[in-house]
Amino acid sequence: MFEELKKEVYKANMMLPEYGLAPFTWGNASGVDRDRGVIVIKPSGVAYPELTWDMMVAVDFDGNVIDSKYNPSSDTLTHIELYKAFPDIKGAVHTHSKFATAFAQAGKAIPALGTTHADFAYGEIPCTRSLTEDEINSAYEKNTGVVIAEHFKNNNLDANAIPGVIVHSHGVFAWGASPVKASVNAATLEIVADMALHTLMLNPEVPVIDSFLLDKHYNRKHGANAYYGQGK
Amino acid sequence: MFEELKKEVYKANMMLPEYGLAPFTWGNASGVDRDRGVIVIKPSGVAYPELTWDMMVAVDFDGNVIDSKYNPSSDTLTHIELYKAFPDIKGAVHTHSKFATAFAQAGKAIPALGTTHADFAYGEIPCTRSLTEDEINSAYEKNTGVVIAEHFKNNNLDANAIPGVIVHSHGVFAWGASPVKASVNAATLEIVADMALHTLMLNPEVPVIDSFLLDKHYNRKHGANAYYGQGK
Amino acid sequence: MFEELKKEVYKANMMLPEYGLAPFTWGNASGVDRDRGVIVIKPSGVAYPELTWDMMVAVDFDGNVIDSKYNPSSDTLTHIELYKAFPDIKGAVHTHSKFATAFAQAGKAIPALGTTHADFAYGEIPCTRSLTEDEINSAYEKNTGVVIAEHFKNNNLDANAIPGVIVHSHGVFAWGASPVKASVNAATLEIVADMALHTLMLNPEVPVIDSFLLDKHYNRKHGANAYYGQGK
Amino acid sequence: MFEELKKEVYKANMMLPEYGLAPFTWGNASGVDRDRGVIVIKPSGVAYPELTWDMMVAVDFDGNVIDSKYNPSSDTLTHIELYKAFPDIKGAVHTHSKFATAFAQAGKAIPALGTTHADFAYGEIPCTRSLTEDEINSAYEKNTGVVIAEHFKNNNLDANAIPGVIVHSHGVFAWGASPVKASVNAATLEIVADMALHTLMLNPEVPVIDSFLLDKHYNRKHGANAYYGQGK
Repeated sequence: MFEELKKEVYKANMMLPEYGLAPFTWGNASGVDRDRGVIVIKPSGVAYPELTWDMMVAVDFDGNVIDSKYNPSSDTLTHIELYKAFPDIKGAVHTHSKFATAFAQAGKAIPALGTTHADFAYGEIPCTRSLTEDEINSAYEKNTGVVIAEHFKNNNLDANAIPGVIVHSHGVFAWGASPVKASVNAATLEIVADMALHTLMLNPEVPVIDSFLLDKHYNRKHGANAYYGQGK
Repeated sequence: MFEELKKEVYKANMMLPEYGLAPFTWGNASGVDRDRGVIVIKPSGVAYPELTWDMMVAVDFDGNVIDSKYNPSSDTLTHIELYKAFPDIKGAVHTHSKFATAFAQAGKAIPALGTTHADFAYGEIPCTRSLTEDEINSAYEKNTGVVIAEHFKNNNLDANAIPGVIVHSHGVFAWGASPVKASVNAATLEIVADMALHTLMLNPEVPVIDSFLLDKHYNRKHGANAYYGQGK
Repeated sequence: MFEELKKEVYKANMMLPEYGLAPFTWGNASGVDRDRGVIVIKPSGVAYPELTWDMMVAVDFDGNVIDSKYNPSSDTLTHIELYKAFPDIKGAVHTHSKFATAFAQAGKAIPALGTTHADFAYGEIPCTRSLTEDEINSAYEKNTGVVIAEHFKNNNLDANAIPGVIVHSHGVFAWGASPVKASVNAATLEIVADMALHTLMLNPEVPVIDSFLLDKHYNRKHGANAYYGQGK
Repeated sequence: MFEELKKEVYKANMMLPEYGLAPFTWGNASGVDRDRGVIVIKPSGVAYPELTWDMMVAVDFDGNVIDSKYNPSSDTLTHIELYKAFPDIKGAVHTHSKFATAFAQAGKAIPALGTTHADFAYGEIPCTRSLTEDEINSAYEKNTGVVIAEHFKNNNLDANAIPGVIVHSHGVFAWGASPVKASVNAATLEIVADMALHTLMLNPEVPVIDSFLLDKHYNRKHGANAYYGQGK
């Protein structure tokens, strides 16, 4: 069952070690079939070289396994919250990629400092608040997703325009219009984190990009009149 | 048409991911045939592994496509301005390479701190002023090139001796006597940015290289009496 | 003799260059057969591409070679002290991996700043005191192990929960339930050192991770009710 | 002629790109046959993938080409001064490796901060004074070697125990008992520079290694009673 989605999710997962975002068993990518109410995700704790597409785990929106002998990623309930909160996304990725995780550990958003960032996201990549002790001790993984959704809602952020987030003290969740696009977004988020960290070393007081330059770059690639690429 | 130039531009483009300067679809290299008034450049938004030489796009000096079914790079009009402003160059490259982009985001020139830089460029790699809102909202890509040309003209810089520039809040344009040489210059610019950033970490107040050492290294490689390499 | 253990120790050693932890002849991994009182370790000063499994050296708990024509690693006596002090470990690794060594040279523990660290170790990776001149001039390698053991004992640290240490002015020792797990721990220790160093660049006063988040992540992976992975 | 030495020097040269010390045509390695008064060195400005062993250039101690159709490295006269000043060395290497060059550009020695350094060199890797305008404008390459030799003589440094140097505003020269050992030393110098720079980021006021620990590590690997490795 779900062969096509499992193959796509497998491909998205394999991009994580390829882009240097996930050593060992770390990281995970998922995809969703909203019509059937199914999420497909990496099995928990399996090293990438051992993965095959048919090991991907299908779960329902409560996290119950509906097609696999494997346990799903321990982060599955976070992915589910993202799919619930952000109705347009079709893929999600979790990594501890190193520069983005440095921002997470510092409890800082990745500021939009240049056009590389603007080509990717319409504004800073936000950093969530810390989870409370209660949130961690009860339904930790679900609450991680709830806190991400809360941040986007409370700050009127559009998940289609800000395709990722820094989870405080933790790492990255990124998403997109497909599992593969979510992985590309996770990789791009790491690149802009790397650039931002080194920019801050050159100038700790650096201002963010001019709003009209942010508008220009974001829209030429993602806006209604985008003219980047080869068209539809 | 333009098969030879397309093959050369293709080769220059493929050097960008090879040197780690351009992930995904980012970056682009071009070349010019000044006699025929033709510029050849990477198609927009195509990933490097999918590129073939015959996908390169030929345009005229107004940016009109004259031979291709593909859209040219969205940065084509910037390249054209560079070819107009700098009559000796025959290749141009745009990247968001990470250390150079850190300088761009910090709004800083790459200072000439050592002989690695002096072997490459006769003085600092300058950083342009920011574009104004008007310049961005009308003819953004053309104006990026105009602002680069303006910086070189206003500061009496010689594009043959300073083979690249940092565009404020954006990234790198580099150029050279051929498309391949432009790519090598883009790679070298990234290396000197890397070294400069780490030098500034060791000593934020580091002085620039002695002028006579800059002269010596630049001229032994590029001057009238250069003695580096195997001669003509 | 000891063919199985030698093959496992060989595999663990070969992971060190694979993970970028040990260039040239640097670094070494060992394993123990506690029933037979035998430790197997890399031969001293042999480059990794030249290693074969049967070159691994078997020694007793006094460091006497019992099966090999090769000299064992010069760090053998340190490994032996670790096996004596930490009765549950079955593999040990020594590296000068670069970010962890930066902490060693700075004489600093690697603070637990996020969940990447918490997934790996239950608290900071400690830094030993410096060895005294007497300790260095008599039985240096043995005393390196003694000082590590002393640090864990004096600070009531559990070597099963803190699978590695920074040796002041020197480098890393890591360990685990097998030689291969020790190598994975050495690699993970380097990753958390890298992340910690870059976090400190973003915020030199960064607080450590909340204790309940440390508990949660450590225990979901390593605790009695761990739910990460595919079970036993 | 000189086939054996040319093959060895070729091998040492090819280690430079392999270890990431020299992109493009940068860097060069040489070897000496003191009995015959011959130095063999990389040809100037040739890219590594194009090199073959028989392209190596044999010169005499005045720098005259005695066997080759190629021009020798532009740094040949510096190598010759090193062979004259340090009678025990049989190989020499020049690189602009990035972390070591950051120290050069900052005009700083690489301090001996840990045992990785002590395993390699008996004390800091010194940084020369800047060359004067006169020294640069007349016999620049020879004078680079003269200034290195002067630094070692004036500071009573032993080139056998300190196998490399930082040339102010420039880069690295390293040397050793053979061309290949010189290349290994150049690579190790870069690693200790990397570690030192990151150590200084963690603690800009870090003290140097205890002298007795420096003694211990240097001597266990290089001293009269060395016990690292597999013996003679």
